[in-house]
Amino acid sequence: MATIKDIAQRLGVAVSTVSKGLNGASDISAEMRQLVLDTAVEMGYASKKIRSNGNRKVCILIENMDYENIDQFGYEIVMGFKIYAARRNWEVSVIPSNLNMQTAEKYDTYMLKNGFCGAFLLGFSLHDDWIKQLNKTTVPTVLLDNYIAGNHHVGYVGTDSFEGISLSVKHLVELGHKKIAFLNGSKNSMVSEERLQAFLQSMTENGLTPDEKLMEYGYYVPDCAKYHVPGFLEHGATAIICASDLIASGVITELIKRGLRVPEDISVIGYDDLPIAKQLNPPLTTIRQDRVDLGRSAFLLLDGLVHNITISKLLLRAKFIKRGSTKEPTE
Amino acid sequence: MATIKDIAQRLGVAVSTVSKGLNGASDISAEMRQLVLDTAVEMGYASKKIRSNGNRKVCILIENMDYENIDQFGYEIVMGFKIYAARRNWEVSVIPSNLNMQTAEKYDTYMLKNGFCGAFLLGFSLHDDWIKQLNKTTVPTVLLDNYIAGNHHVGYVGTDSFEGISLSVKHLVELGHKKIAFLNGSKNSMVSEERLQAFLQSMTENGLTPDEKLMEYGYYVPDCAKYHVPGFLEHGATAIICASDLIASGVITELIKRGLRVPEDISVIGYDDLPIAKQLNPPLTTIRQDRVDLGRSAFLLLDGLVHNITISKLLLRAKFIKRGSTKEPTE
Repeated sequence: MATIKDIAQRLGVAVSTVSKGLNGASDISAEMRQLVLDTAVEMGYASKKIRSNGNRKVCILIENMDYENIDQFGYEIVMGFKIYAARRNWEVSVIPSNLNMQTAEKYDTYMLKNGFCGAFLLGFSLHDDWIKQLNKTTVPTVLLDNYIAGNHHVGYVGTDSFEGISLSVKHLVELGHKKIAFLNGSKNSMVSEERLQAFLQSMTENGLTPDEKLMEYGYYVPDCAKYHVPGFLEHGATAIICASDLIASGVITELIKRGLRVPEDISVIGYDDLPIAKQLNPPLTTIRQDRVDLGRSAFLLLDGLVHNITISKLLLRAKFIKRGSTKEPTE
Repeated sequence: MATIKDIAQRLGVAVSTVSKGLNGASDISAEMRQLVLDTAVEMGYASKKIRSNGNRKVCILIENMDYENIDQFGYEIVMGFKIYAARRNWEVSVIPSNLNMQTAEKYDTYMLKNGFCGAFLLGFSLHDDWIKQLNKTTVPTVLLDNYIAGNHHVGYVGTDSFEGISLSVKHLVELGHKKIAFLNGSKNSMVSEERLQAFLQSMTENGLTPDEKLMEYGYYVPDCAKYHVPGFLEHGATAIICASDLIASGVITELIKRGLRVPEDISVIGYDDLPIAKQLNPPLTTIRQDRVDLGRSAFLLLDGLVHNITISKLLLRAKFIKRGSTKEPTE
């Protein structure tokens, strides 16, 4: 692994300049500092520096996710992480990320510059530059609901989709439903793919044949319901399992608009148990992802990665929450 | 949740007797103590007592697994767990389990009696009484390579079989192999089932059709090779992926006995990277399960369960280890 001397040699500058660049001293230019940091990352020095003994400074980087209000998806995740980290005397910075940060410098450089020994990334998309760089990062990094193959510095935390979807299918089958539809989230998302596989497997395990006409990809927003609910109804669905509570809220709106009653005419199940779920009319039967536990687990996983334990996945139990949006089919 | 008073009332004895039973005082009979403990467990008092603040006493219960010598499978797992636990000031007892212990009392009673707030179980079989009781236990419990559905007090730690098997298949495909056989471990084992699914999926992803004649369940011992190697050869296998290093060692013995050379005539891959793997002739190409990390992760997971984080699965990265038992096929 590279030393400070190696970096100085490569750049043709004094060792003291490199040292100043790495430590953020004010008497070198911003350009020189950036050059030192980029070179350190490139030469593999960052990994050593980042893991230096006693560094307990980590960050939560958040993009495209609201977390400042208790009703928002990210709030409890961030709280769970922060409280658990504080109890173990780790220092946590919560940083809203944006495109500028990502184009300004590489992920590893950002982490080295700010002295973080690890990060928990929330709400990023697979198209983000920093996510693309995760294939090669040496910074211990935890992702929610996303898996990076082949890099043991990156771990994934999420809720067990198989358990969640199978609890939904089982509940509907026990009520007597056979024509069960599945309105999934966005295509090209790892959790959507997992939830589809889980749906297919659960249907088969319950002796039902999944019907292609009753399975569709949508988006993780209520609005997608209007494109798929008509087809489901046409093909005789008596229940609709949705890949999120937001999708389920759109489905209920769409059904009511067509003069159908939930759950008397058709049952609907969500996924997530967002605060909104119990405020819907009818209150939504759903699968709970415990967000505080997601945050706490993300910390446990990051703690493991920082200590070089090569954890790739950490899955939480899904919990079935029975409310008012499901009942026996009428036929 | 039941109180000491409730237990006393149910048994028709004094509160002080119950208290003595729970705390292991010497001035009540062993029978009365057992009765108090069993009743406490039955009434749900155990869960509260076990999680009482500051209890950091856990145990590793081991059955059917050698762990006293560094060459044995369990050694590094136990060490990894103990070292990590010690660093966090947890107290760990390593206890060889046996049938007598399991028939003498229930799992939860044993834990309550001995004051353990959690346990890591190694080497147990699904037929063991204590494993059967895990569906309903309230004691935070971690299992290696076994998953208990529906009980959020129990978590599973293991290595990602999908990653491991797909690394093996990819390696062989890159060398040019097409007729790849898979000798699995015992049927009715969760990891065997996962490894089979992983094999089917990896073959398909690499554009190969899995051949039923080239996939067999064996046992996790070398001896099973003799029953399946002849059939694999008959059906043209140029490479054999084995579900463990021990199986692979049996496969190599069997191939040599038949005058074949490894890897010149046929390639062999193991799984686990036991110390024996590099001592085989030829040294075995295999998939590494990092046993120290398994132990450390088991502790992380148990720590989470004790703090009521409902983790169900924690998977480690599998690592491909290239040695001398694989090369290009001759045809």
